[in-house]
Amino acid sequence: MSSPKFHPIKTNEQLADYIPQCGKVELRNPNIANMEEDVLYHISLSNRTQDLKEMFSDVKFVCFGGSPTRMKKFAEFLVEELKVKISAGQALYNIAQGSDRYVLYKIGPVLSVSHGMGIPSLSIIFHEILKLVYHAGCYDVIFFRIGTSGGLGLEAGSVVITEEAVDGLLRPYMEVPTLGMILQHPSKLDQEVAMELMSLAVPASDGYSTVIGKTMCTTDFYEGQARLDGAFCDYNEEDKMAFLKRVYARGICNIEMESLCFAAYCYRAGIRGAVVCTTLLDRLKGDQITSPHSVMEEWQARPQKLVASFIKKRLGIE
Amino acid sequence: MSSPKFHPIKTNEQLADYIPQCGKVELRNPNIANMEEDVLYHISLSNRTQDLKEMFSDVKFVCFGGSPTRMKKFAEFLVEELKVKISAGQALYNIAQGSDRYVLYKIGPVLSVSHGMGIPSLSIIFHEILKLVYHAGCYDVIFFRIGTSGGLGLEAGSVVITEEAVDGLLRPYMEVPTLGMILQHPSKLDQEVAMELMSLAVPASDGYSTVIGKTMCTTDFYEGQARLDGAFCDYNEEDKMAFLKRVYARGICNIEMESLCFAAYCYRAGIRGAVVCTTLLDRLKGDQITSPHSVMEEWQARPQKLVASFIKKRLGIE
Repeated sequence: MSSPKFHPIKTNEQLADYIPQCGKVELRNPNIANMEEDVLYHISLSNRTQDLKEMFSDVKFVCFGGSPTRMKKFAEFLVEELKVKISAGQALYNIAQGSDRYVLYKIGPVLSVSHGMGIPSLSIIFHEILKLVYHAGCYDVIFFRIGTSGGLGLEAGSVVITEEAVDGLLRPYMEVPTLGMILQHPSKLDQEVAMELMSLAVPASDGYSTVIGKTMCTTDFYEGQARLDGAFCDYNEEDKMAFLKRVYARGICNIEMESLCFAAYCYRAGIRGAVVCTTLLDRLKGDQITSPHSVMEEWQARPQKLVASFIKKRLGIE
Repeated sequence: MSSPKFHPIKTNEQLADYIPQCGKVELRNPNIANMEEDVLYHISLSNRTQDLKEMFSDVKFVCFGGSPTRMKKFAEFLVEELKVKISAGQALYNIAQGSDRYVLYKIGPVLSVSHGMGIPSLSIIFHEILKLVYHAGCYDVIFFRIGTSGGLGLEAGSVVITEEAVDGLLRPYMEVPTLGMILQHPSKLDQEVAMELMSLAVPASDGYSTVIGKTMCTTDFYEGQARLDGAFCDYNEEDKMAFLKRVYARGICNIEMESLCFAAYCYRAGIRGAVVCTTLLDRLKGDQITSPHSVMEEWQARPQKLVASFIKKRLGIE
């Protein structure tokens, strides 16, 4: 079973011209098609134990978000919005309940999935959801991340649609240490989906603003985002403000912890993807998140509403 | 409120001589002591809303683990092991239940905390737990990570006590992009605690082996750990095996996704820390985790038992 030493795999440079895919979901891994069984370990599914085609082939939209509770609420919200019929005596249930790592709900052609916090946690579920929609034979799927973030120069509660994701040093790619090398995967997002989302925001009636801009994605919530209130802090208020202002001046609208991986994996998979986050505070004004729970609940529902509008429009509902 | 441009903060080089602390927990952030309120956002606690001293000042051991369900079970296990009295009509409850990000249980002098998956998720909860034990005025605290991993050259179900944590390129430090710089924090672990844990393993009666060795910590479960079964894979079986064997030859016993940050933060905080993980498979033999649920449950209980033995010994129980 010896493989040739130089095998025909596309390099990152070749991938740079990769066009978002409109068609059947394909994997950039030839091994999967030849595996007897593929266990999607962290969502407790398998292409042998379950009939994934039967269960998921109609999926057109996958919505990822950090918190399991929020993604459950989003699923319940979509039942109403998409007028999905739930039979008497039945209820939405967490398809991934065999694992306690993530939650996974299906609402008609939409999946609502939690991804936890940070790039590694998102990475695991992204791999497994991508394999899921591949095994299911899905077509023309769009991925969304709906989340929370710290804003820059925006009123708290504003919504940011990510134009481009960059890392904590403003680099527009995700680095993945792979077999002793650091590979860089460009984090481009689909501009058409972003513009279509933007067209559905109605600031006048919404009562809050929605903007398109760059998102900085960090590996840490405290030092990585220049907070002064972590357990460790080796800089002062002046250093912090200088950094945040420089970042703001270069077009960064908000800071969170997953967009870079989400964008890089969507681009690499040839899947159209968009990131929509609410801002829980203005980082140019402070570090701590202290707004009342009820207020933040409403703010967190804003990206959900926007993505739901997009899905309804695409499905021709209303 | 202008601060001096060059302020007296210890550099990483000075920190390299930092001695594990036996005494009151201190923070390497002078700002916290001067804050009117410190909201520990992701565990839904605050030093103003709650009396953290009253609640937590007796804490001596903090046990972190990825899965919320597993850390709840560990809490229940400790109630039995430490013979903690639960009053009639009362029950263990998740102190962090105001947030759905992490779980936090208190069992006498022990905290059982979930950290989710990957370094960023662990980083957030570590910052907040460290601030918690600081606000509570705790003394002589020891931190543990009890988790799961992929083993190298070990029978599945073996237990690894981490001697040193390294990243995916074998570097013994954690890189944190901080205000536009990449800072490196050494990931040293306390050797005394590791040896004391090792002395409590009894292979003959345990029925499985416990070893001390190096742990590789990656930012990704699939490509970062040289798996062939992710949604993306740009290498083949030969490349994978060559990498894993080279890593194994350099003393790496297991691979997981949090030890580097755990070790780096413990060292930086001057807190004695140890990482104890079970191995769910031998990565020199495969990628997929396919053992029956009940078998894996028993394997996952092994690091819990070892850490419970340590705690009991220290508390003089039995």
